[in-house]
Amino acid sequence: MAAAAPLSPLAPKKYPALPAIEGVRFATIAAGVRYAGRTDVMLALFDRPAQVAGVFTRSKCPSAPVDWCRANLPKGEARALLVNSGNANAFTGAVGARSVADVAAAVSKATGAAAREIFMASTGVIGEPLDAGKIAAALDALVDAARPEGLMDAAKAIMTTDTFPKVATARVKLGDAEVTINGIAKGAGMIAPDMATMLSFVFTDAPIAASALQPLLAKSVNRSFNAITVDSDTSTSDTLLLFATGAAAARGAPEIDDAADPRLAAFRRALDKLLLDLAQQVVRDGEGARKFIEVRVAGAASRKAAKRIALSIANSPLVKTACGGEDANWGRVVMAVGKAGEKAERDKLDIFFGDIRVAHAGLRDPAYDEAAASAYMKNQKIVISAHLGVGTATAKVWTCDLTKEYVAINGDYRS
Amino acid sequence: MAAAAPLSPLAPKKYPALPAIEGVRFATIAAGVRYAGRTDVMLALFDRPAQVAGVFTRSKCPSAPVDWCRANLPKGEARALLVNSGNANAFTGAVGARSVADVAAAVSKATGAAAREIFMASTGVIGEPLDAGKIAAALDALVDAARPEGLMDAAKAIMTTDTFPKVATARVKLGDAEVTINGIAKGAGMIAPDMATMLSFVFTDAPIAASALQPLLAKSVNRSFNAITVDSDTSTSDTLLLFATGAAAARGAPEIDDAADPRLAAFRRALDKLLLDLAQQVVRDGEGARKFIEVRVAGAASRKAAKRIALSIANSPLVKTACGGEDANWGRVVMAVGKAGEKAERDKLDIFFGDIRVAHAGLRDPAYDEAAASAYMKNQKIVISAHLGVGTATAKVWTCDLTKEYVAINGDYRS
Repeated sequence: MAAAAPLSPLAPKKYPALPAIEGVRFATIAAGVRYAGRTDVMLALFDRPAQVAGVFTRSKCPSAPVDWCRANLPKGEARALLVNSGNANAFTGAVGARSVADVAAAVSKATGAAAREIFMASTGVIGEPLDAGKIAAALDALVDAARPEGLMDAAKAIMTTDTFPKVATARVKLGDAEVTINGIAKGAGMIAPDMATMLSFVFTDAPIAASALQPLLAKSVNRSFNAITVDSDTSTSDTLLLFATGAAAARGAPEIDDAADPRLAAFRRALDKLLLDLAQQVVRDGEGARKFIEVRVAGAASRKAAKRIALSIANSPLVKTACGGEDANWGRVVMAVGKAGEKAERDKLDIFFGDIRVAHAGLRDPAYDEAAASAYMKNQKIVISAHLGVGTATAKVWTCDLTKEYVAINGDYRS
Repeated sequence: MAAAAPLSPLAPKKYPALPAIEGVRFATIAAGVRYAGRTDVMLALFDRPAQVAGVFTRSKCPSAPVDWCRANLPKGEARALLVNSGNANAFTGAVGARSVADVAAAVSKATGAAAREIFMASTGVIGEPLDAGKIAAALDALVDAARPEGLMDAAKAIMTTDTFPKVATARVKLGDAEVTINGIAKGAGMIAPDMATMLSFVFTDAPIAASALQPLLAKSVNRSFNAITVDSDTSTSDTLLLFATGAAAARGAPEIDDAADPRLAAFRRALDKLLLDLAQQVVRDGEGARKFIEVRVAGAASRKAAKRIALSIANSPLVKTACGGEDANWGRVVMAVGKAGEKAERDKLDIFFGDIRVAHAGLRDPAYDEAAASAYMKNQKIVISAHLGVGTATAKVWTCDLTKEYVAINGDYRS
């Protein structure tokens, strides 16, 4: 275990208050999965079955709880969510699957939920067996303690090497009723020593059926959690779950079961914004991060090409170290555009740092002021734009710089 | 410019003597392209047109000299090779193309070679116009100085942030005659501040026609220069050229124009070995490298899958920082296998560090001795093996660790 890192300089200055969401209660406990002196298990308990949608890691070696959630998702209903930190239960084979089943049995016993209504996630060390007994022993206490206001504590219980809890909230009209969306996330850990997970859980009282929630979530993720990168490494455990209790129906919110329903417009915008907020917080807590970097690609041949080029720039160690060094090194951006394998024409390429055009039409911009560019690079947020000039498609992705702290956190020998 | 880095700890202990190759002479000069107090231009002059084959960067934004070489290659004949360091002539648009033409005109004037028989490469800063005049002014002196023994000096003249010159030599039977193959390379720079190139030039007196050289080279590259990675970033300027003077024909070597000719077997093996040697030297001089890492993948569904998984492991910042930290962190290897997107089954996966099996069939190997693994990780060369158990295909790639020195070299603000 690495020593606790100091608070990221990119952490938010304050956290929003998270209003209670009718129909779901939260509890946390220090179950001693791995950490001492802190909470490491959270339970979300739904008063009545909630509708649920989910998106998971694309890893071909997913963790046992990811397998479990994938199997349960088609039913679309959730009575309980159980998350532990300290152990990812990943690459634990049949033993891991058994641990998940044992935890589920304990949750079922304590809550009355059926196995198929229970969702789980784990984050922490890879390859160590997860002791289901420790979690099982804590369940009765968790169920007793569950209360509507517990979400901020839940955000803290799922942290691993995160330096701050990640929370977001939104209030939005659905029909004539106001509904609430609350979300929490943990990140950093996907790139931390032995840690392997980006997790996010979002809750709403909106009465939206799983059939509508799933496409809503899948689309929103493309421009948020699937548009961030810290170091190009993909966790075995990435899990994003969206739960809708439907409690707002009692206050007149319309019941919706089709993602194309026009009454969802405001909700969709609010969800997009909330997920992007959480995803960007994950980047802002990337290990060793000192700069928050937005990469914009315009004029690409297709949206897919635009995103691939944007990720090529965002994942380039040379671009990331240059940002860390406050160096407006546009040559490296050109390199990253070129290596992406998508259509690009050198002689049509413009590169900007902020509003400063440093390269134009295949050559260093003659009007480019190096002093202004250097001053710009001292900002905590850096926007890199590449205008390809070969089409009309655009993409935006977010990342952080690559620093010696990243190497220290991930390379210093674990004791 | 970063200050000169200390010699890589992975540098060879001694350099082989490079025997002269009949039909080609070399000269170097300090032309002041960018560096002071060192040679920065090399000329290889062929007494008679040599057969030539080439492989270039896959970047969609290649440098001007790469465009030039690609256009000349179909003719398959070379009279001169001119290489400069200090300026990559990349992302220099029409101005860059003009510089190349100007340099070619000067070479043509000084040597009598036609423009289509002249090959060029440039390495150094991206985006700065290359002053053709400085090189043109040096050409008469270069032609006068050219001598058969000058290849080691040439290897030094093309260095940028390399900490040692990269040379290799082989002697092999072709028919009943002995032929020689000499090669030089420069690397490191593809990942250095503002620098952008992996260059390699190989010379032989074997009488092999371009029609046979090209497929020979293309195939050999897949297991050498295309099987190494330092930081996953691809240069705009990567260039590998193979020249055959044919002078050995006078000593009885058979003239060969078909890559499938069985008499090429020994030559092919020698070429493979020589290119792999040069490619591995590039990795050993990767910026900040302290460990030389070989990644072996076995049991993959296809050769393409095996190589993709091997590169996923070799490019993973988490795997590379773990090696730097001498940490046998097999969880990160699992992660890298999983993210490659190729077929892998968690419960069939074995991971080895050296001969130590740390993970077996989906779980930490019960017999795994952490002390032995930790001791192994202290070696300068680390072999990571992943046995997938889903097929029979294999791949090997090479990389180096990711260290704070890498970040310092690439991130510390350039003055």
